[in-house]
Amino acid sequence: MDNFRFYVPTDIRFGQDRLETELTGVLDTYGKNVLLVYGGGSIKKNGLYDQVTDLLNANGNTIVELSGVEPNPRIETVRKGVALCLEHHVDVILAVGGGSTIDCSKVIAAGFFSEEDPWEIVLGRRGYQGEALPIVTILTLAATGSEMNAGAVISNMATNQKLGVGGPAMMPKVSFLDPANTFTVPAYQTAAGSADILSHLFESYFNVTEGTDVQDFISEGLMRSVIKHCPIALKEPNNYDSRANLMWASSLALNGLTRGGKHGVWSCHAMEHELSAFYDITHGIGLAILTPRWMAYVLSEQTVDKFAQFAKNVWDITEADKMTAAKQGVQATYDYFKACGIPMTLPEVGIESEKFSEMAKQAVEHSTIKTDAFVPLAEKDVEAIYQACLTESTFI
Amino acid sequence: MDNFRFYVPTDIRFGQDRLETELTGVLDTYGKNVLLVYGGGSIKKNGLYDQVTDLLNANGNTIVELSGVEPNPRIETVRKGVALCLEHHVDVILAVGGGSTIDCSKVIAAGFFSEEDPWEIVLGRRGYQGEALPIVTILTLAATGSEMNAGAVISNMATNQKLGVGGPAMMPKVSFLDPANTFTVPAYQTAAGSADILSHLFESYFNVTEGTDVQDFISEGLMRSVIKHCPIALKEPNNYDSRANLMWASSLALNGLTRGGKHGVWSCHAMEHELSAFYDITHGIGLAILTPRWMAYVLSEQTVDKFAQFAKNVWDITEADKMTAAKQGVQATYDYFKACGIPMTLPEVGIESEKFSEMAKQAVEHSTIKTDAFVPLAEKDVEAIYQACLTESTFI
Repeated sequence: MDNFRFYVPTDIRFGQDRLETELTGVLDTYGKNVLLVYGGGSIKKNGLYDQVTDLLNANGNTIVELSGVEPNPRIETVRKGVALCLEHHVDVILAVGGGSTIDCSKVIAAGFFSEEDPWEIVLGRRGYQGEALPIVTILTLAATGSEMNAGAVISNMATNQKLGVGGPAMMPKVSFLDPANTFTVPAYQTAAGSADILSHLFESYFNVTEGTDVQDFISEGLMRSVIKHCPIALKEPNNYDSRANLMWASSLALNGLTRGGKHGVWSCHAMEHELSAFYDITHGIGLAILTPRWMAYVLSEQTVDKFAQFAKNVWDITEADKMTAAKQGVQATYDYFKACGIPMTLPEVGIESEKFSEMAKQAVEHSTIKTDAFVPLAEKDVEAIYQACLTESTFI
Repeated sequence: MDNFRFYVPTDIRFGQDRLETELTGVLDTYGKNVLLVYGGGSIKKNGLYDQVTDLLNANGNTIVELSGVEPNPRIETVRKGVALCLEHHVDVILAVGGGSTIDCSKVIAAGFFSEEDPWEIVLGRRGYQGEALPIVTILTLAATGSEMNAGAVISNMATNQKLGVGGPAMMPKVSFLDPANTFTVPAYQTAAGSADILSHLFESYFNVTEGTDVQDFISEGLMRSVIKHCPIALKEPNNYDSRANLMWASSLALNGLTRGGKHGVWSCHAMEHELSAFYDITHGIGLAILTPRWMAYVLSEQTVDKFAQFAKNVWDITEADKMTAAKQGVQATYDYFKACGIPMTLPEVGIESEKFSEMAKQAVEHSTIKTDAFVPLAEKDVEAIYQACLTESTFI
């Protein structure tokens, strides 16, 4: 196990009916001027927007709104948010939405204290050490884990870049996690969000660091939770406990718990970020499509032990031969995503092969997967994995 | 799943060789006057005392020492610590040791701000809402989890009371977790500490709340980590990775991760606290002795599902009949503790039956196990469980 720091001071308020009694008290800690950030308006349909603005108005808050945050949040929206914060002397950002809304809010929060364009902050990647406005979140989608960590991903369509950025001050101060706020998430987004959670777990699980059973066994437990509860939530969108398990899993999958003590970089996210950057597809869907092909591509005598462990502990595969078990685990992962209604080829989401080499080049350039991944990936490897996503696959 | 709050702002610095570069910087955040709290002197033998005092002296700290904290820390020692803090205007408490040293430090930290006797704080139990001096810990034993939570247990031998106390301000600010600092922990204490970790997991796992798979699957993963690594650490005391897995498991087993979202009270701790209060035995040993007997006592058609899940997911028991599997799980737990070298009957630790009824009475009075436990326990039940600990047991 490597040395690591685990410091996650986000105050999680998990459960039903907390906003009424807790939200304004939390916001008042920071001030009265609130930037309310949200996405495409689903919170107007399900009543959450009205609930929040009613509470804030009754509390005498000044509400400044930034709506229309994109599913892959763009730097232009961040710039708009920073300008609003400066103009209206915002004290605290209230992000109501999923990972995109929270990510956008994080970079706005940092941008408020910077004299440079916010894209410069993004280009600084994970090294942001400056201040940020306090962020409070009300989560409406179980997926990215942004509600309990210090990272964000911002897209720049002008340069076809989608980059991770982060720093301690960007971690939300308080996050309200009410599973009932995800009852109205459509099936497709529920599946995509679950695939995103699983991918966060896979990325740190398939890793070269030795002696990390605590992290890995926790990760297997979180995987099993998601694998069990996503199908239930798809059939019964108002199943509170299944929504609760997905929501809490989303936060724990990416707050350092399964990652601390390990080194190396993620593989599928590096490859998927290029799909989203070039084609603006749903992040979790891209991950679900890539993951089983990546697994099959990197499975070898060198990696078979971890894949066999995965097959046994996550998928209950009892096959004794390790390589056979490992392949069955990959197949189970693929079949699972498919059963959740996820389109499992790139052409189904509008991506053909013409930009594969360009995207593969960027995937390698924008990351260190060529040297630091579980199995190092060069451009030709990434391109081969993209190629494998053109048609349906079987792995056993 | 119940509503819960998860707010664990302890800054964990996990790994080797961090004190040299990080300790004084952390302490300087709070001030120069340090109360150094430790136990029986093992840190003088293994060099940790010298390392810490050298660093603090070179940094110009004033060190006030409180040594000799008991394995079950006593209120008299807390009183001494409070007096030292007041007399020397202590800014920060540095607890170097295991759970006892940290627990003692927590109540000293709170006592500093109280005009009452510290036992009054303990009698206030988990409701302490006052201030506390900042606490920094250097952990030397993987067991109680006190390094990453807000609770403490203090004994009053004059009244035969051993009570839990806690409040947000008592949570350590920073905890240094270096697995190498546990290399010198003797086998018996390693086994007792591991039993304590497992008991924390069992207590929240066997619980009546529905829909808590995330908590339960994480708990199973932590159990498997401890079950795997304690025997390795017993054979190879300097095995870094096994010590690391035990240490990180100890913190995660009792920081709310496996408990949040559940209601009800713990059973074995309530029963064990009386053993320690009357006989001053090692806490983890008492828990190991009681646990399998308690499991067997509460196993029934009503509880068999959870015990069968435990048998399958923790002990890899594949037996299809649930009751048979459940019993095998209990047996596996008993056999495991025995194989770790733990004396598995009460007479082996000097406890005969003469005070069983008095202790059973207190166990019920000092807790709410009669109404709120996984399976409610009245005095006669507690006494029967104590009785079952008089001789070796088999469960299948």
